[in-house]
Amino acid sequence: MIVEDPLARARRLDRTDPLAHLVDAFHPLSDGHSYRTIYLAGHSLGPQPRTAARLVERELRRWRDDGVAGWSQRWLDLSTQAAATLEAILEVSPRSVHIGDSTTVLIHQAAGAALAVRPDRPHIVASAADFPTDLYALEQRARTAGGRLRLVDDPVDPDRVAHLLDDRVGLVALGHVDFRTGRLLDLPGITEVAHRNGAWTLWDCSHSAGIVPLGLGEAGVDLAVGCTYKHLCGGPGAPAWLMARPDLVERLDPPLRGWFGHRAPFELQPTWDEAPGVERCAIGTPPVLSLVTATAGIDLIASVDASVLQAKVASLTQLAMDQAIEWLGPLGVEVLTPRAPERRGAIVALRHDLAWQIAQLANQRLDIVCDFREPDVIRLGLSPLPLRHVDVVAALTRLRDAISTDGHLAYPSERTRIT
Amino acid sequence: MIVEDPLARARRLDRTDPLAHLVDAFHPLSDGHSYRTIYLAGHSLGPQPRTAARLVERELRRWRDDGVAGWSQRWLDLSTQAAATLEAILEVSPRSVHIGDSTTVLIHQAAGAALAVRPDRPHIVASAADFPTDLYALEQRARTAGGRLRLVDDPVDPDRVAHLLDDRVGLVALGHVDFRTGRLLDLPGITEVAHRNGAWTLWDCSHSAGIVPLGLGEAGVDLAVGCTYKHLCGGPGAPAWLMARPDLVERLDPPLRGWFGHRAPFELQPTWDEAPGVERCAIGTPPVLSLVTATAGIDLIASVDASVLQAKVASLTQLAMDQAIEWLGPLGVEVLTPRAPERRGAIVALRHDLAWQIAQLANQRLDIVCDFREPDVIRLGLSPLPLRHVDVVAALTRLRDAISTDGHLAYPSERTRIT
Repeated sequence: MIVEDPLARARRLDRTDPLAHLVDAFHPLSDGHSYRTIYLAGHSLGPQPRTAARLVERELRRWRDDGVAGWSQRWLDLSTQAAATLEAILEVSPRSVHIGDSTTVLIHQAAGAALAVRPDRPHIVASAADFPTDLYALEQRARTAGGRLRLVDDPVDPDRVAHLLDDRVGLVALGHVDFRTGRLLDLPGITEVAHRNGAWTLWDCSHSAGIVPLGLGEAGVDLAVGCTYKHLCGGPGAPAWLMARPDLVERLDPPLRGWFGHRAPFELQPTWDEAPGVERCAIGTPPVLSLVTATAGIDLIASVDASVLQAKVASLTQLAMDQAIEWLGPLGVEVLTPRAPERRGAIVALRHDLAWQIAQLANQRLDIVCDFREPDVIRLGLSPLPLRHVDVVAALTRLRDAISTDGHLAYPSERTRIT
Repeated sequence: MIVEDPLARARRLDRTDPLAHLVDAFHPLSDGHSYRTIYLAGHSLGPQPRTAARLVERELRRWRDDGVAGWSQRWLDLSTQAAATLEAILEVSPRSVHIGDSTTVLIHQAAGAALAVRPDRPHIVASAADFPTDLYALEQRARTAGGRLRLVDDPVDPDRVAHLLDDRVGLVALGHVDFRTGRLLDLPGITEVAHRNGAWTLWDCSHSAGIVPLGLGEAGVDLAVGCTYKHLCGGPGAPAWLMARPDLVERLDPPLRGWFGHRAPFELQPTWDEAPGVERCAIGTPPVLSLVTATAGIDLIASVDASVLQAKVASLTQLAMDQAIEWLGPLGVEVLTPRAPERRGAIVALRHDLAWQIAQLANQRLDIVCDFREPDVIRLGLSPLPLRHVDVVAALTRLRDAISTDGHLAYPSERTRIT
């Protein structure tokens, strides 16, 4: 059997990549001299779309030249326009998405709004593998409603979730992608068992929006939230989004009432009267400049067919995993990310006793931006638009050479933390 | 008696204005051809500091070149640095201010955190004159705690507040400046009667921060919030701030827990453990670019002595009121703003039956940016740093000439809305 050389394979995949032309829609990272850096942290903060700076400049100019008139000219429409574009990405009905605030605030808003209308169902099923801030918010919402969190065993699947459901559970709230391992949960299956037991679902799609077809509408997902700064490439701290199923939204009673969620915000009425749709979940004045960069990334992602996006994610992650197994496996690296492409997001998670040292080495000496998660995991984030397959091979090559030529890293017990 | 010509008076005041050099620290509004526009809407959105664009560009560049490393390089410190500067403006202890989220979210956070720790005091004293979003949030916080709002009669003063206090009231929550009339409330007096009755105070200083010495520390104010985009000139939707008295903060139980309020956010622990100080009131990831413009405005305001700032506000508003009374009074305009300088903020509110039409005329034909509040109020916002006294006289002159030469406006009953 003739085994294809990894670099040749990467070049072949890049030549036939239907998204190849979009690599250049993003700025490569630069140290001021070169662009040698391979950015594998799009799961944390996506790289900058080339359109972002111009969009920010335009709104800075508007503030400068027109002052408060900017609100009626443009800024009030920014959220709804970005939301409309996101609706296509999330594959949900028109007018079911609101953009604003942080993901954490919107988890409070979504979970609180759902629990409020069914006081007989105060419990929330969640997972210890969820991102911590989700758990903080969910635990507090459940407790406020008189319930508590029920944590599902790992790995989370429909059966394990079903095991925890009864007529006291109002919400199943889970991260779509396990942020430590990159494992993609069975969203339709879990949503179905939740519904069968009368629970609603709240999915945190921070790690899946922008990399796979979400199909939230088809799966009948009740509520979802997500950030815009990971694979949606919306910029640092760009506002989050909240999706509510249209036939559910009229029942929602948001725990954070504010004037932007009012039916007529600028009539300045003394009592709150909820906006008819998902806009009732809006709260205060949106952060305009951070919202503007979000639109740059969202527009780019929306220009691409989601199944094509997913195919590229599968291809990038497969290549990374194959080389991690072949090259790094003998050096003690274990791949934690599921082998089946449909069961993973865009993170490839590598376990090693010296993961922290390897991540330091990668960032400080190998020009690879990746991150470390306690206790022993390195995460490679493979955002589909800005990355080429040759970048993946180059990163894995650098890691392989560094680990194998640096004898210490191959012998964990002889080494302490470097820094 | 020789009466000084208003323009001569304005020129004299500008010549001796110790803040005159800072007028040029802001961009004048421009229609692309001229700078004739007089911007009297700083009470809604402050004008742009000349430093703002450069600061934004720097962080855009950081995102572009360094990606996620921007968080450890700079962005995580942005909030605490801006908060430290704000502490000087608010005249409060170090480490008592948090910046992030919207004013509405922070009212929920502050009021909820206070009511949670004293369940025997679930009621809130507020005013129907408060800004509506404050009332929406406060009503919901009181109701959630098992209480309700008690609305104090207008005009709000210590006696009227005292009248509503008993041992079931946990919080007196008021806007420092009446946003319709510009009336500055007696913050020390009201705080004192609240404390005498065992209630804490929550002041919304959105309209007072950046124009008068706040003295929140000396008055013993328990909690305060405010936006940064009015007289602090922080840009559209820039994040808000929350102040908690240091000896109170350790008791606070925020209703919106999130990872940025955790003692060790990046250890990603499964349960929430509150940060030791006011940072426990932080929630999610802050909007970096919107936070950056906030620092531009905050730094400028902090460079100025608050009593000098207040003197200029008093001088600008006095001039505007004098000319409004002299020139517009005979045309049916009534000044709603208090005559005593220490009893007003930076808004001069003018009442007229045709206020809406006059405001339209001012904005569309007179190059004056000002706003209208239902049912019949025009608001002139006189931000102390970007405005000169001659601007005030020019604006009032234009209004006088337009109203008197446009006969219709002088005869309200003959005119309908001019759209």
